[in-house]
Amino acid sequence: MKKKIKILLTNDDGITAPGLFALHKEMKKMGDISVVAPDSEKSAVGHAITLSDPLRVSDYKKNGDFFGYAVNGTPADCVKLAYWALGIKPDLLISGINLGSNTGINIIYSGTVSAATEGVFLNIPSFAISLTTFLNPNFSVAAKFARKLSQIVLDKGLPEGTLLNVNVPSVKKESDLQGVQITRQGTAMYHEEFDKRTDPHKRVYYWLTGQKVKLEKDPDVDDRAILNNKISITPVHFDLTNHDYLDELRDWKIEY
Amino acid sequence: MKKKIKILLTNDDGITAPGLFALHKEMKKMGDISVVAPDSEKSAVGHAITLSDPLRVSDYKKNGDFFGYAVNGTPADCVKLAYWALGIKPDLLISGINLGSNTGINIIYSGTVSAATEGVFLNIPSFAISLTTFLNPNFSVAAKFARKLSQIVLDKGLPEGTLLNVNVPSVKKESDLQGVQITRQGTAMYHEEFDKRTDPHKRVYYWLTGQKVKLEKDPDVDDRAILNNKISITPVHFDLTNHDYLDELRDWKIEY
Repeated sequence: MKKKIKILLTNDDGITAPGLFALHKEMKKMGDISVVAPDSEKSAVGHAITLSDPLRVSDYKKNGDFFGYAVNGTPADCVKLAYWALGIKPDLLISGINLGSNTGINIIYSGTVSAATEGVFLNIPSFAISLTTFLNPNFSVAAKFARKLSQIVLDKGLPEGTLLNVNVPSVKKESDLQGVQITRQGTAMYHEEFDKRTDPHKRVYYWLTGQKVKLEKDPDVDDRAILNNKISITPVHFDLTNHDYLDELRDWKIEY
Repeated sequence: MKKKIKILLTNDDGITAPGLFALHKEMKKMGDISVVAPDSEKSAVGHAITLSDPLRVSDYKKNGDFFGYAVNGTPADCVKLAYWALGIKPDLLISGINLGSNTGINIIYSGTVSAATEGVFLNIPSFAISLTTFLNPNFSVAAKFARKLSQIVLDKGLPEGTLLNVNVPSVKKESDLQGVQITRQGTAMYHEEFDKRTDPHKRVYYWLTGQKVKLEKDPDVDDRAILNNKISITPVHFDLTNHDYLDELRDWKIEY
């Protein structure tokens, strides 16, 4: 008898998020599902972990067939805790479906991607999946693709230390999709804006409001694929060394 | 007349941290210093940014010659805010001196490194510097080296998108230092442990307690340099794409 596949789901939008629910609905057709996710929204937490506070776990149920553990921590906390404390040793980890894209240099702020990175640290085949809209999200296309990609990843395997970062364009109907593209992470810089405001007590505060980016022209960049209504898949790893630059830096002959 | 160099200092241990103070003391010999740092300790916040709350800035003074802006945000927030809202456009950014090492895959959780990454996003030559101990820290060797390295970086420049991640071993006396080594980030996985405890109200909680790692043997790995009492310098970039894997992934011919 074929052993049932164990799948761990998490996200950064929190355990009540519709994107996680849509993913669960699709993935339970394929295997045994565990859900360990933040008890509230944790967007833009980056790869934070909780060292100075205790983590608490509570049960969360929905619609009779969705059961998960809600954790008062970050997405990275959830994966660590699931594996090391709750004894969940999955064959596959999926983080998402995130509401909004995770592309370009913004992935460095992404809780969604950081959870998949934690999976990779544990040698679990992992991918992050995001829907590139905040308005009227329809998660069904992304959920269906998550399931398809899961089977491929389980069949082919991923190299040690590498996750897949998947972004699914928001399309009106499935037939608008123009296929799948393997991409590289964009590296274009952002121009950012802060609003300076005064509160009712006459104190000044600032609020990060806008990001503008001039997209690279390279068609292999993640955001270009999205603009062309293609699903973008970027292989992401966590070796941050700029290897091409090591020799030049050695030539500097820096001494103390 | 030679224009004075403008230097921005930040950290993740907070504006009151002795490591930042030691860095300030040394760097002010070299240029005009601005300090914008978190108003409290923000270790292991990763590359978080604050989107859902207003940021407030307050003045912080110490010993008559240390002036800085304290921000109720993360290290990444501090750099963004300094540049875009406070109009600070430095020639150089230094993040540190951190209390404790930032090496191996742990740099992905590092607020210290994330602040330097923000500097790189703004095309500012940037480095992060950490002292590899929590006990009886003596920041003077690291501070002196920060100043020396600053001059080298300003003279030579750094390639776009690359920062230097510097770790200084904790030595009893300066003569114990065995020089400087250009290294790559270690990628060894950690074994982690959680303590499961029960609170006075009989509720269960978990606390991340331990990390164990089997260090790679490669002498060019950051932590190996530290073990040999050498200052470790790793060039770090934020292109997380695993470029070597793109072609293989394309061969999968994934379709929707």
